[in-house]
Amino acid sequence: MTLEIPEVVINRLPVYARALAELAAAGEAVISSQALGELLDVTPAQIRKDLSYFGRFGKQGRGYNVQVLLSKLREILGIDRQWRVCLVGVGRLGQAIAEYGGFGPQGFEILAAFDANPEVVGRELGTVPVFHSDDLDSFLRQNRVDIGIVAVPATEAQAVVNRLVGAGIRAILNYAPINAHVPNDVTIRHIDPVLAMQSMTFYIKRPEPSAK
Amino acid sequence: MTLEIPEVVINRLPVYARALAELAAAGEAVISSQALGELLDVTPAQIRKDLSYFGRFGKQGRGYNVQVLLSKLREILGIDRQWRVCLVGVGRLGQAIAEYGGFGPQGFEILAAFDANPEVVGRELGTVPVFHSDDLDSFLRQNRVDIGIVAVPATEAQAVVNRLVGAGIRAILNYAPINAHVPNDVTIRHIDPVLAMQSMTFYIKRPEPSAK
Repeated sequence: MTLEIPEVVINRLPVYARALAELAAAGEAVISSQALGELLDVTPAQIRKDLSYFGRFGKQGRGYNVQVLLSKLREILGIDRQWRVCLVGVGRLGQAIAEYGGFGPQGFEILAAFDANPEVVGRELGTVPVFHSDDLDSFLRQNRVDIGIVAVPATEAQAVVNRLVGAGIRAILNYAPINAHVPNDVTIRHIDPVLAMQSMTFYIKRPEPSAK
Repeated sequence: MTLEIPEVVINRLPVYARALAELAAAGEAVISSQALGELLDVTPAQIRKDLSYFGRFGKQGRGYNVQVLLSKLREILGIDRQWRVCLVGVGRLGQAIAEYGGFGPQGFEILAAFDANPEVVGRELGTVPVFHSDDLDSFLRQNRVDIGIVAVPATEAQAVVNRLVGAGIRAILNYAPINAHVPNDVTIRHIDPVLAMQSMTFYIKRPEPSAK
């Protein structure tokens, strides 16, 4: 079944789950695809189609049970459990990632960070210990790690990705501005604010930028 | 013509442009859609189809002229010029954004940052001056700003987006973990590492996570 579900659909499910979690926290028991679509600026038809890949949710004209759909989405996505993460690269960006408070509550625990810089090795960033990069491979042999975060400079990123993949990591969150290559059985997502900005300027460009 | 081009196509063009810039820097004069596809892990057919929205590039069997295609893509995307950016929110994340060296060389100049925290107001982050949030609206009246970056906590993000939109900003890069709403004539992109992680766990989950 997995192979038939488009990746764009999988990418939208976490957005639905987050909205449903907020509705549940606000005490809402039921929501229509119409109302959910308005919350998320997508069409109700898209929500219904996306969910149809995973079975039938909600009854015609009665909307979705918020808790039931949320639980089901969390199970489908695998976000109903704890995931173990390592971080490679502890420059300014890596430090911000290590100390970001948003991962833990969502079940993503950063176990350890790695860098070659003696100024950060041995420190703790929040609760995350920083080890030397040379210890990455042995750490991955001794500890189950599910996801690797890459926050090294672009020139080093592919080599780090290769080390993580070689150690059996199958999911990588890449902050380096390169199109890192991974084998087919490894999933990679890129966080790249420059590309995001460059995808917006198309919409705001004018023949002559107005001076002011 | 703009309305007919799918947003997913626009989102891919910056990736093509980045690869072409690297090829140009490496002295490559010509590249086939096959070779470009291999570099980017996409099919040559997708590259040809994406580019076909904008006219004819390259001759059958002879590949693309790297410099010509790069120039054309930069023009299409509007990344052949300087863009003026403001940053709202100077916590740890905002500081990392202000001091990130990757925006300037790509033509995105962060003119100013805004926060209400007296510990950061009046400071300079790299070359970016930090002003008080109260001065945001008057700054936007007095200076042309094209893009707003939102790096405030989730609870404040929609209000900040509304202020930016109200001041005429039509492109917003949002780092807050909310589905911020904008009018139809405003483009928004979200940078959300938790959602990115949650879209990967689908692919790596097992019925029972193996303990180790």
